[in-house]
Amino acid sequence: MSLVVVGSVAYDAVETPHGRVDRMLGGACTYIALAASYFTPVKVVAVVGEDFAGEDRELLAGRGIGLEGLETAPGKTFFWSGVYSADMNDRTTRATDLNVFADFQPKLPASYRDAPCLFLGNIQPALQRQVRAQMNGLRLTGGDTMNYWIADYRDELLATIAEWDFLLINDSEARMLSGEHNLKRAARAILDMGPSTLVIKRGEHGAILFRRDSFFIVPGYLLEEVFDPTGAGDSFAGGFTGYLTSIGAGLGDGVDRRELSRAVIYGSVMGSFCCERFGVDRFRTLTRAEIDARFQEFKQFTDF
Amino acid sequence: MSLVVVGSVAYDAVETPHGRVDRMLGGACTYIALAASYFTPVKVVAVVGEDFAGEDRELLAGRGIGLEGLETAPGKTFFWSGVYSADMNDRTTRATDLNVFADFQPKLPASYRDAPCLFLGNIQPALQRQVRAQMNGLRLTGGDTMNYWIADYRDELLATIAEWDFLLINDSEARMLSGEHNLKRAARAILDMGPSTLVIKRGEHGAILFRRDSFFIVPGYLLEEVFDPTGAGDSFAGGFTGYLTSIGAGLGDGVDRRELSRAVIYGSVMGSFCCERFGVDRFRTLTRAEIDARFQEFKQFTDF
Repeated sequence: MSLVVVGSVAYDAVETPHGRVDRMLGGACTYIALAASYFTPVKVVAVVGEDFAGEDRELLAGRGIGLEGLETAPGKTFFWSGVYSADMNDRTTRATDLNVFADFQPKLPASYRDAPCLFLGNIQPALQRQVRAQMNGLRLTGGDTMNYWIADYRDELLATIAEWDFLLINDSEARMLSGEHNLKRAARAILDMGPSTLVIKRGEHGAILFRRDSFFIVPGYLLEEVFDPTGAGDSFAGGFTGYLTSIGAGLGDGVDRRELSRAVIYGSVMGSFCCERFGVDRFRTLTRAEIDARFQEFKQFTDF
Repeated sequence: MSLVVVGSVAYDAVETPHGRVDRMLGGACTYIALAASYFTPVKVVAVVGEDFAGEDRELLAGRGIGLEGLETAPGKTFFWSGVYSADMNDRTTRATDLNVFADFQPKLPASYRDAPCLFLGNIQPALQRQVRAQMNGLRLTGGDTMNYWIADYRDELLATIAEWDFLLINDSEARMLSGEHNLKRAARAILDMGPSTLVIKRGEHGAILFRRDSFFIVPGYLLEEVFDPTGAGDSFAGGFTGYLTSIGAGLGDGVDRRELSRAVIYGSVMGSFCCERFGVDRFRTLTRAEIDARFQEFKQFTDF
């Protein structure tokens, strides 16, 4: 089965305690698509500027990612610059130049419309909703959002996620969206908004998958060196969604709870690999065998 | 097998978002002993003042805890007062009146000396070492410490923990003791100090057990209401040490890795119950059947 991913493709400048890179491929859609591509065929919907490099296009194409929906618009590619704190738990944005992303109107190629699975990266909720409306016979829709939409576009966001099977956000976003500090209560409130499944990412502390009748918790992978956490959450989204797409799992009542848990583990595995190098660099060499070996490691250090 | 626990017995005043209690039984030794008593016979070494209430003594005795080493000294019992932040992740100390605890010189009754297991709660490292030296044929020694001893009594502390089988501290203490921010590196440095086993408590985010050749991570239990986190870390220590004592496990090379993991789970279970009521109140009604049911819950929400 194939997965359509919508979101930002960007150039990032990042500084961490391990060094700095002034311009590297980034953006949520990029990380999600790269991570998901290890599990299932992926097609992207995104916009770049005329400065988008051929080698970056080739990296995506080289992983078999469909680029028919990657529009090139006059102007420059979205640019983000940030610096991480010494412990890398905080980051400060130095620049956000939306450039061509400011007027992003996702255009779904006809060849994408029958894909059974859709992941809507963090963009304006109304745009997320419009994309979904153009798809035929979706089996699985999920997506991400952020504090800005939760605070200032709440009604649009609620109408949007009401149609989703799963929502994948971090703990502070879950608290903000639900108005509950306690994550169990927050999850219950969010599941009442429509999605049957909520995944809360907790950064270095792992992730929790909530459904109405169960939950699954995985701790974070212990890396000895976190080079650059940029894109880790999006890589998680790619691993999670890519695995679910690959097994053809919907998220209705009959879903296999173990498969959901495995999807969370694959998400965690992809997030952990992402942090091992700057930007998307780890995905240049990563193999499926390494992914499966790390999956087994998760089993070893959590099983009792 | 029986376990000797050394540490503070106190009265606490605690304020959390759920309410306040002006005086309740507390102290590390109290929580450790109560939690461990569900797994194995426990004897305490501690000091209280003349104000120590008969009903508090009865609570301990009622759980079968040996009180021969509970000395009553002229003066008042150690008193601590603190207030928790709204999310209960931080607390501010309002008062620490050491009282009789200021001159605590642990006296080991003759009947304790042949116990095979010893847990040294957070007291002056030299005192911890003196207690251990009075024991005959220990199979298992573990203990706790705190930032104050790590910063100002480092040599004494290093000499003390060099003789221990396990050290059980929280993440910020592990970072401080090792000088490493990364927990894997911190653990390696601490294992080089002597103990074969290190357990790092991470509060609501669970715990990690490290040995030289393996590690085990458990996420925190998701409580819907944390009434009072006071004593949760000590209850963890009690569950962990009590379980190891009950199965007669040393921590040498031949140790069963699964038993170690189970000990971490029992620690987590006891810590989670502790938070459900103010102070030690949960231990007034808690049953072993509830403990084992929660152990199974941990299996359910972590297994994949």
